Amino acid sequence: MKDTTGQLKLGLSLVSNGTHPAGWRLPEANAAAGMDIALWKEMAKAAEAACIHFMFLADGIAVRTAAKDNDALSYSGRIDQFEPLTLLGALSGVTDRLGFIATASTTYNEPFHIARKFASLDHISGGRIGWNVVTSWSEAEALNFSRDKHMEHGARYGRAEEFVDVVRGLWDSWEDDAFIRDKDGGRYFDPAKMHVLDHKGEHFKVKGPLNLARPPQGYPVIAQAGSSEPGQELAARTADLIYTAKRDPEGAGQFYESVKGRFAKYGRARSSALVMPGIMPVVGKTMEEAEAKYRRVQELIHPKVGLAMLARTFGDLSQYDLDGPLPDDLPELDGVKSHREPLIRMARENNLSIRELYMRVTGAAGHMQLCGTPESIADTMESWFRAGVCDGFNIMAPWFPDGLYDFFDLVVPELQRRGLFRTAYEGKTLRENLGLPRPAHPAAKAAAPVETV
Amino acid sequence: MKDTTGQLKLGLSLVSNGTHPAGWRLPEANAAAGMDIALWKEMAKAAEAACIHFMFLADGIAVRTAAKDNDALSYSGRIDQFEPLTLLGALSGVTDRLGFIATASTTYNEPFHIARKFASLDHISGGRIGWNVVTSWSEAEALNFSRDKHMEHGARYGRAEEFVDVVRGLWDSWEDDAFIRDKDGGRYFDPAKMHVLDHKGEHFKVKGPLNLARPPQGYPVIAQAGSSEPGQELAARTADLIYTAKRDPEGAGQFYESVKGRFAKYGRARSSALVMPGIMPVVGKTMEEAEAKYRRVQELIHPKVGLAMLARTFGDLSQYDLDGPLPDDLPELDGVKSHREPLIRMARENNLSIRELYMRVTGAAGHMQLCGTPESIADTMESWFRAGVCDGFNIMAPWFPDGLYDFFDLVVPELQRRGLFRTAYEGKTLRENLGLPRPAHPAAKAAAPVETV
Repeated sequence: MKDTTGQLKLGLSLVSNGTHPAGWRLPEANAAAGMDIALWKEMAKAAEAACIHFMFLADGIAVRTAAKDNDALSYSGRIDQFEPLTLLGALSGVTDRLGFIATASTTYNEPFHIARKFASLDHISGGRIGWNVVTSWSEAEALNFSRDKHMEHGARYGRAEEFVDVVRGLWDSWEDDAFIRDKDGGRYFDPAKMHVLDHKGEHFKVKGPLNLARPPQGYPVIAQAGSSEPGQELAARTADLIYTAKRDPEGAGQFYESVKGRFAKYGRARSSALVMPGIMPVVGKTMEEAEAKYRRVQELIHPKVGLAMLARTFGDLSQYDLDGPLPDDLPELDGVKSHREPLIRMARENNLSIRELYMRVTGAAGHMQLCGTPESIADTMESWFRAGVCDGFNIMAPWFPDGLYDFFDLVVPELQRRGLFRTAYEGKTLRENLGLPRPAHPAAKAAAPVETV
Repeated sequence: MKDTTGQLKLGLSLVSNGTHPAGWRLPEANAAAGMDIALWKEMAKAAEAACIHFMFLADGIAVRTAAKDNDALSYSGRIDQFEPLTLLGALSGVTDRLGFIATASTTYNEPFHIARKFASLDHISGGRIGWNVVTSWSEAEALNFSRDKHMEHGARYGRAEEFVDVVRGLWDSWEDDAFIRDKDGGRYFDPAKMHVLDHKGEHFKVKGPLNLARPPQGYPVIAQAGSSEPGQELAARTADLIYTAKRDPEGAGQFYESVKGRFAKYGRARSSALVMPGIMPVVGKTMEEAEAKYRRVQELIHPKVGLAMLARTFGDLSQYDLDGPLPDDLPELDGVKSHREPLIRMARENNLSIRELYMRVTGAAGHMQLCGTPESIADTMESWFRAGVCDGFNIMAPWFPDGLYDFFDLVVPELQRRGLFRTAYEGKTLRENLGLPRPAHPAAKAAAPVETV
């Protein structure tokens, strides 16, 4: 178990107009948050005032929803949002210490572009950038990139492993002090400090060097959220930050041990990466207020959205009474059995109507939902953290902006009061603020033993 | 010939630490300009104060120089710069009216990424973004993208034509008023106003829709600089802005007529696009001062840089006396003959040394260099503009920041005094400020005749 004497880390995991599928419908919500640049700048400044470690931008490169037809789709929020890499340039300009992590897919990108854009953002932001490595899961994304179907899981991870290596290799194109810019002698860089990658692998051939200097952080922070075996291996080998969806401390603890248990074989210290589960908080000054808030947003889940979510697991249920039980004669569906049986059991045991069932399965998309007072939410966060099942949390704002500001205004001060969360940024770069080491350039690493002999 | 009663348009064509290969070596130059975000923000603000139309970011996705070995390469400036799309997010945040045009290659990108990133930036900036469509010319870029060699010219343009169509189709994924976000009814968008592209072409299969709203400008401004036949065709069919390298008004006029002469066959008005040649100004308060400045920077061209530039045309000349003539026994080189003969003739006729020859061929990379007083530079610009051979100019700053500020401080006021340049922005978006129409959505266009019958 990890050292629990320290303080927990807090990121914000933000998407379009909020995590809750009906959050945008609340009277106080900004329904157009996904495309409101002024709001995002305001939220970034508020996050920095709250000493949050980073803003994490979930992303997909398609309209990805459960809806089967355009009519059902038209009731879904979270359709539109800024492209993260372009957004980060803008948000980094209105902040000084807040970190930013953007999602980019290894399945539908080229490593040179990714290495260059993240390196560029790391320079633009003064070392406050991270890359969330994803392999993309949706068929809709494949269809936007000249593929007929989605690449299978193993192939995606094979490509991802090589992709991350190429990107890190490109970030090492130049040693930190390669650019001497000697005006008198006319020499712009020291040629001994340029390293041409010349990668030739199974998926990529990339010569290099990158056409910009090594990132201020050495490597931007690398985040990963894969929970499968190959996902955990990739995380254990390459990730600084591991994002996960866990609903209870037992599951979180098992995952923590499973992924950190793999670090040794890659020569990494367990402390060299942070495991941060997602939580979606709904905060009230009293428990009644919090529960009323939650009930109100749950009731706003449109039946077309709820039924589309259930359709992934159960097929089309639209001909049944929403307030009646799950029918006995459910159609057979391929490949969802393991997910379906527990839900059927839950529905039967709790005597849930179809409406009640979709309310249970929507919301935080498999992450922990914490509905309560600042104290009760802090209690849960503290207990997880002290039990050593996580190093911090990714806060998923259910809607914007109040769903986020409530957390800053009410929960953060409570965590600070308990000494669980900082009251000022410790450093300048995201790595410094997360307590993560700055990767040395391989040439510097190689040179080090000689110097110390 | 075009209507010359109006005012000329001014863009800035900026790259790394300046256009002149030795500009970075000047004592007053910021040699690290390519990676100095504070400087770029300052330059953007200064450009806006000067009422400049846009900042145009040239770009390549490789270290692209003439140098044959790492030693020669190490004497080249312009190695490192921010990636344009990430930079524009940051620069748009410190300005309100200045436009921004970023280069992105159709050869080494996917249309969905390009459509999405430029649309995102157009939203982030409030409609001030443009895309400079390039097909990439360097072998070095191919080697960074898993290719063994550069795609040939015709194939590149075939791909580019389809690429631009797919991008424009994706920008039309949603009608301008598609997102209704009806909180009461729960409907987020009007499904009749979503348009799934479902493109299936020779190079791409792209389903769509794009996961964000139609750009504020309808389409971001499209810029193009191809001067070949396929380049001019692509420009005539799709470009709003045409960038070109012309050293004299006759050549500029021929190009102007050649490209605008193609507009009619695509159903476009000649006024629907702007032709803007590049010029590199070196400004002095007197002619003597300007010439001294220019001589000073020319003399700073390192022989290794000059010889590398000549080597592209003449092969390795490093064994000859720099201050002696071009040797008679020049080695034969493939594929450069047409470029080589005029240079040999120029060298012989003017009795140029090797050093003098490389000084002539470096500098503004084929663009017009204007070394003079504010009055003499304005005279040339005015004469080109009034002759109807261009609609404005792209100013290539020879070094940063003074090479740019001299133009703002000295030449812009002179142009304004003559009534040739505006003293305030007319509109909010880049299209508005360039006097270019906002493309209507195809569905709105289709509907229009019905309404007016």
